[in-house]
Amino acid sequence: MGESVFKGVEMVGTSDQSFSHAIEVAVKRARQSLRDLSWFIVKEQRGGLQQGRLEYQVTLEVYFKLEAESGDKAAD
Amino acid sequence: MGESVFKGVEMVGTSDQSFSHAIEVAVKRARQSLRDLSWFIVKEQRGGLQQGRLEYQVTLEVYFKLEAESGDKAAD
Amino acid sequence: MGESVFKGVEMVGTSDQSFSHAIEVAVKRARQSLRDLSWFIVKEQRGGLQQGRLEYQVTLEVYFKLEAESGDKAAD
Amino acid sequence: MGESVFKGVEMVGTSDQSFSHAIEVAVKRARQSLRDLSWFIVKEQRGGLQQGRLEYQVTLEVYFKLEAESGDKAAD
Amino acid sequence: MGESVFKGVEMVGTSDQSFSHAIEVAVKRARQSLRDLSWFIVKEQRGGLQQGRLEYQVTLEVYFKLEAESGDKAAD
Amino acid sequence: MGESVFKGVEMVGTSDQSFSHAIEVAVKRARQSLRDLSWFIVKEQRGGLQQGRLEYQVTLEVYFKLEAESGDKAAD
Amino acid sequence: MGESVFKGVEMVGTSDQSFSHAIEVAVKRARQSLRDLSWFIVKEQRGGLQQGRLEYQVTLEVYFKLEAESGDKAAD
Amino acid sequence: MGESVFKGVEMVGTSDQSFSHAIEVAVKRARQSLRDLSWFIVKEQRGGLQQGRLEYQVTLEVYFKLEAESGDKAAD
Amino acid sequence: MGESVFKGVEMVGTSDQSFSHAIEVAVKRARQSLRDLSWFIVKEQRGGLQQGRLEYQVTLEVYFKLEAESGDKAAD
Amino acid sequence: MGESVFKGVEMVGTSDQSFSHAIEVAVKRARQSLRDLSWFIVKEQRGGLQQGRLEYQVTLEVYFKLEAESGDKAAD
Amino acid sequence: MGESVFKGVEMVGTSDQSFSHAIEVAVKRARQSLRDLSWFIVKEQRGGLQQGRLEYQVTLEVYFKLEAESGDKAAD
Amino acid sequence: MGESVFKGVEMVGTSDQSFSHAIEVAVKRARQSLRDLSWFIVKEQRGGLQQGRLEYQVTLEVYFKLEAESGDKAAD
Repeated sequence: MGESVFKGVEMVGTSDQSFSHAIEVAVKRARQSLRDLSWFIVKEQRGGLQQGRLEYQVTLEVYFKLEAESGDKAAD
Repeated sequence: MGESVFKGVEMVGTSDQSFSHAIEVAVKRARQSLRDLSWFIVKEQRGGLQQGRLEYQVTLEVYFKLEAESGDKAAD
Repeated sequence: MGESVFKGVEMVGTSDQSFSHAIEVAVKRARQSLRDLSWFIVKEQRGGLQQGRLEYQVTLEVYFKLEAESGDKAAD
Repeated sequence: MGESVFKGVEMVGTSDQSFSHAIEVAVKRARQSLRDLSWFIVKEQRGGLQQGRLEYQVTLEVYFKLEAESGDKAAD
Repeated sequence: MGESVFKGVEMVGTSDQSFSHAIEVAVKRARQSLRDLSWFIVKEQRGGLQQGRLEYQVTLEVYFKLEAESGDKAAD
Repeated sequence: MGESVFKGVEMVGTSDQSFSHAIEVAVKRARQSLRDLSWFIVKEQRGGLQQGRLEYQVTLEVYFKLEAESGDKAAD
Repeated sequence: MGESVFKGVEMVGTSDQSFSHAIEVAVKRARQSLRDLSWFIVKEQRGGLQQGRLEYQVTLEVYFKLEAESGDKAAD
Repeated sequence: MGESVFKGVEMVGTSDQSFSHAIEVAVKRARQSLRDLSWFIVKEQRGGLQQGRLEYQVTLEVYFKLEAESGDKAAD
Repeated sequence: MGESVFKGVEMVGTSDQSFSHAIEVAVKRARQSLRDLSWFIVKEQRGGLQQGRLEYQVTLEVYFKLEAESGDKAAD
Repeated sequence: MGESVFKGVEMVGTSDQSFSHAIEVAVKRARQSLRDLSWFIVKEQRGGLQQGRLEYQVTLEVYFKLEAESGDKAAD
Repeated sequence: MGESVFKGVEMVGTSDQSFSHAIEVAVKRARQSLRDLSWFIVKEQRGGLQQGRLEYQVTLEVYFKLEAESGDKAAD
Repeated sequence: MGESVFKGVEMVGTSDQSFSHAIEVAVKRARQSLRDLSWFIVKEQRGGLQQGRLEYQVTLEVYFKLEAESGDKAAD
């Protein structure tokens, strides 16, 4: 009835293809364990340069809905 | 002894009444699973407007104390 | 393979000795439960003054690597 | 499908009652001319103190949906 | 002569394809009503996750040149 | 009666004389179409260097009062 | 004739009722010693959670007018 | 040797001439009561528009040196 | 009950030894005149390099509790 | 052992294709003269709109490792 | 061809006349060695107060175009 | 004569001992090639955790004075 609670989790995805792919990598991983993924915010875009290769790194804050019952642990 | 460790968790509470109520909703939910809730910071106040109704949304960072023993998992 | 995912956790360490020690306190505690600690960022340095004693408080964002398999729960 | 455009408008509402009321004042005014109000963000909360009275001032960024047809003028 | 005046308008474009496409959606819409579009700044990149689909959302500040004559209304 | 609503509009004024003059250029232009200009904030000061000449550019957020009646369109 | 000087003072008000009340507590205290209180800005909203009770804490920057004569000491 | 302490005070100077003059107004006022003025930072530049006149307002943080002896009161 | 008011004062401590020592220098000085010092925040860490020597400079916001009675002057 | 020094250089890459390409343009150019490119941060994404064409502009901070010997000039 | 690369350099100009003059001092100096100066951003305005005199200090980020050929060294 | 120009250079120093040592490492390296080092600002403190060891990383902006004659190249 209008009251709900979401939890935000900071995740960093990396990819050697693109920033877009790095976001997909992180979101896909988050979905493996987060039931009710709701939205995310891009917080930082970085690149690592190692042995001539570019690694794309994106920091996201990912939000998912907490169930009212005690199944989800907010503290985690 | 002077040494202690706290963990911060980002939570978003929503309410159709007020920002104050949205904070209470999030804090109440956090207390169900967090044993030693210590303080919180208001990070953002937003509103959603759907079908003529206002939904208040408050993003909090909630901090609680980690026990020295391994009962709490910092990684979660 | 180029794809990996990290999770960030906000922790506050306190010490009555120094900011450096407060960081060590938080990092040591994080390592008890986080298998693959990778890097951290200092977000805030504060001090509490109680009964004539100084307590150093450092807020860190600590990052660790998530395993590809489902052993780690990103949602926590 | 899946493409839409929103426009953000900065508004400041004032009230001699409370910050909550100042938000309602601004949102109500926005609705008189904005057909499809979607969400808002609280950007600043200030107070003016004049002749012993407190005036609450809240700066919002209010977002509404632009119609695909040319009825709405994005430039305004 | 050296004197000119620009106006900034905040717009949010969404797309189910990519952030790049969401920017194009917003810029294309802006051009329908803004005669002299000059530059834009990316202010935020978010994602909405609904029913298993990712929606890309980009907030832009779009700037266009105001004519010296009264044709454009700065107040809008 | 204590309730009023203001709207903020972002404007960029340019001048080849000085930052002060660039502000005056933007404020003068705003007054041509904004009836009840109330205050402004300097958000950014930049310079363009073209063909050996300096162009001063100032970004302002200009606020004006909206009439209670429907004469002003908040959405614009 | 158009020249005046204000001084800003940072204050934190606390209340076990609400953020609104915490602001009133700080403003009321400021008025006991500040003659010409002019405006304030809300800088931070926090909560302390002790023994099951919520304490609301609001950080304000409060501004008051300095008299031209030497009655007020700017340095304080 | 090598140890000194400075105190920062926030001041707002206003002028109907220019931002430069508003700074001079605040600095001049600060010097009437602050013995050892050392440096200042410009924090904000605003303008008030009243009855067709522009008032320039500059917020400064002004720093001055505290004497080692108890002559200056840090708490003020 | 539950109502209290704190005041924040910005101080800069310097030392030719370390940032830690510069903080102690400022806190020690603050305690000479502030009765009820409660907490501080580190706002900036800088270094001055003069004649081959490094001077450490730390900017703190120091908070202390105001007495309910009129003994303390909030305006200072 | 364990001591190294990096230098950060701000670069803006432009492209008429995409933000991704603008980053590659800047990184490629940086590599022509920087021997030990290590990582970069995306600081701003802008677009220029000229004669109906979109130009993508990305501001990066690029970091590279300084050799211990005097070959590299930190001051440059 | 649409691809170009710019480099940003942070400079601080000082003057005992005004902030405007301090900017000119820095820009003039930059032009002595930078061939293709393009734009600058004002990042900070400070003042030094020494022996009763005011010194104006302006921090700029100055951008200039890098030649495609290896004449300019990006690393510097 | 009151006019001088400084240049800022971003540097990252690392150490396996402490943040203080990482700063010394960067400052010492900067002095090898920068003649007139004047001041620095601590911009970020991070830690890398590799194979059970902590590496301290400090990002500084280091400022040095440019000579009036053409000996120093501002563009570098």
